[in-house]
Amino acid sequence: MCDPEKVPHHNARPVCILGLGLIGGSLLRVLADAGQPAYGYNRSPQTVNEATAAGYDASSDLAAVLQRAAGDDALVVLATPVPALPAMVAAVAEHAPGTVLTDVVSVKEEVSRIVAAGHPGARYVGGHPMAGTAESGWAATDPGLFTGAMWMVATDDGTDPQDWLDVARLARLAGAMVVPAAIDAHDRAVAAISHNPHLTAAVTATVGAGESALALRLAAGSFRDGTRVAGTAPDLQRAMLEGNAMALLNTLSETIDRLVAARDALRDRGSVEVIVADGHRARERYEAIAQAAPQPIDDVQIGASGWEAELRRQGHLGRVWLG
Amino acid sequence: MCDPEKVPHHNARPVCILGLGLIGGSLLRVLADAGQPAYGYNRSPQTVNEATAAGYDASSDLAAVLQRAAGDDALVVLATPVPALPAMVAAVAEHAPGTVLTDVVSVKEEVSRIVAAGHPGARYVGGHPMAGTAESGWAATDPGLFTGAMWMVATDDGTDPQDWLDVARLARLAGAMVVPAAIDAHDRAVAAISHNPHLTAAVTATVGAGESALALRLAAGSFRDGTRVAGTAPDLQRAMLEGNAMALLNTLSETIDRLVAARDALRDRGSVEVIVADGHRARERYEAIAQAAPQPIDDVQIGASGWEAELRRQGHLGRVWLG
Repeated sequence: MCDPEKVPHHNARPVCILGLGLIGGSLLRVLADAGQPAYGYNRSPQTVNEATAAGYDASSDLAAVLQRAAGDDALVVLATPVPALPAMVAAVAEHAPGTVLTDVVSVKEEVSRIVAAGHPGARYVGGHPMAGTAESGWAATDPGLFTGAMWMVATDDGTDPQDWLDVARLARLAGAMVVPAAIDAHDRAVAAISHNPHLTAAVTATVGAGESALALRLAAGSFRDGTRVAGTAPDLQRAMLEGNAMALLNTLSETIDRLVAARDALRDRGSVEVIVADGHRARERYEAIAQAAPQPIDDVQIGASGWEAELRRQGHLGRVWLG
Repeated sequence: MCDPEKVPHHNARPVCILGLGLIGGSLLRVLADAGQPAYGYNRSPQTVNEATAAGYDASSDLAAVLQRAAGDDALVVLATPVPALPAMVAAVAEHAPGTVLTDVVSVKEEVSRIVAAGHPGARYVGGHPMAGTAESGWAATDPGLFTGAMWMVATDDGTDPQDWLDVARLARLAGAMVVPAAIDAHDRAVAAISHNPHLTAAVTATVGAGESALALRLAAGSFRDGTRVAGTAPDLQRAMLEGNAMALLNTLSETIDRLVAARDALRDRGSVEVIVADGHRARERYEAIAQAAPQPIDDVQIGASGWEAELRRQGHLGRVWLG
């Protein structure tokens, strides 16, 4: 899956990571472990102490970190929760306005709006690694978190090819495969395969637990796995889901429509044939895609005329960019 | 969790298992491996050959197996899919009418109706081990399948105490813990924690896969775990869910009502606060119950006046009978 010939060697450009939680901290670790110059900021001195004690280059002085990033022309990575982003973007605009900027936060239209509002001239190329757990904090960081994961890199028309390559190579250095997409297509996709599953997990948990202690005592694999993400911290779930409200409304409405049709069929004909068959077919499609090595995107020269559209076209077929 | 002092030694009564699929085959293996006299029937000679080659006592001659069960007063276990049950029950009524009968099939009101119709005088005490995988067939059998699992034993008023003990001790011999319940309460509970999760998994898979190949490419843990049971064979899912239609209609209607309320809140106020908070609380309740060692039922003499109601009362609190 990972042809060493194709993994880029270190970027000349250092990487400056703002936020050292699960994603940002894991990114700092995998980059530094690979010899890539990388350093990070976190507002909590405790996290900075933990990172420093583990041998990583971290500071809680945001202005100093960004002045350093401006000085060595670093690639700056926004890795805080959404509520902290406006302050981060304002600090980048003040201290390191010319640096290339990316992020590892979920919903791309929301982050793009925050960047556009706080730093209108930013050289911003959004990103989203599809990795994470219900854990959080430095103790949960893992340099292997991105190994084999998908990492969406925003590929809208007008993206600067060199900036795009910097961000895509960052994802590759972390061990991930690059999925190019337009930000609106990305947000619709994550509504369907991540945010909507949070809502169905939540309601499945609520209905099950509302029945009786007997029911929870009898709960086995289908309940355990089907409700797992309902255990994610509520504020993290809310920030993610509410930031993608428009796309999520569409998938939630489709979910409701399909469940209503299933209820009518069960009530009127005693049958769950359609919902079960549709779900089984969908799960088989997912397994086929998840279990096969992804096809690589080929024949696209980054920067050639129409490169963004061609990358997006191949990304929409499920292909990945491996550099 | 499993006090060896409390696990009963072999039943004097042999165990005769009708159907050697995942559940029945695993049961035959764990019993025989523990030295308990046990034998089984399967209609497929291939399964019988596999079981026999592995050293187990199996036959594809139903009449002969049941005549043997009648001769040695075995405990007979119905372990076929629901569609095969009427024929099994008729054969028991013909060849081994006086034996104690139990089952390991999901929905208890349905099985009780089938038993009452085909063998009105049966000494029947229903059962339901909460164990299984998406796999099936002899190759998937596992003598450890029931270790630490919950095994519901029907405990309605008027149950014969000695027959109940035979079935409960079977569950204990298999390594499970006994959850006593009335059959209607059991069926409502499994609608809430097993059958409804199959429907929400199915619709979550369908909505996700319907979005795009890009979406399935980006799918990670929340989609993988949340849709896993949608991959179960559709005919098995239909038999289970449609056999519990009334209870499932209630949980499905509640699921729809809660999702509609969530959609309205998201559309009108941009908030998923309630659904996420409810789901998180429910998941925490489940984890607290699943992770703690269950409290044992105590102070109930099986057969004493009101023993069934007292077992059910404690079972409703999430306690288990350990013998």
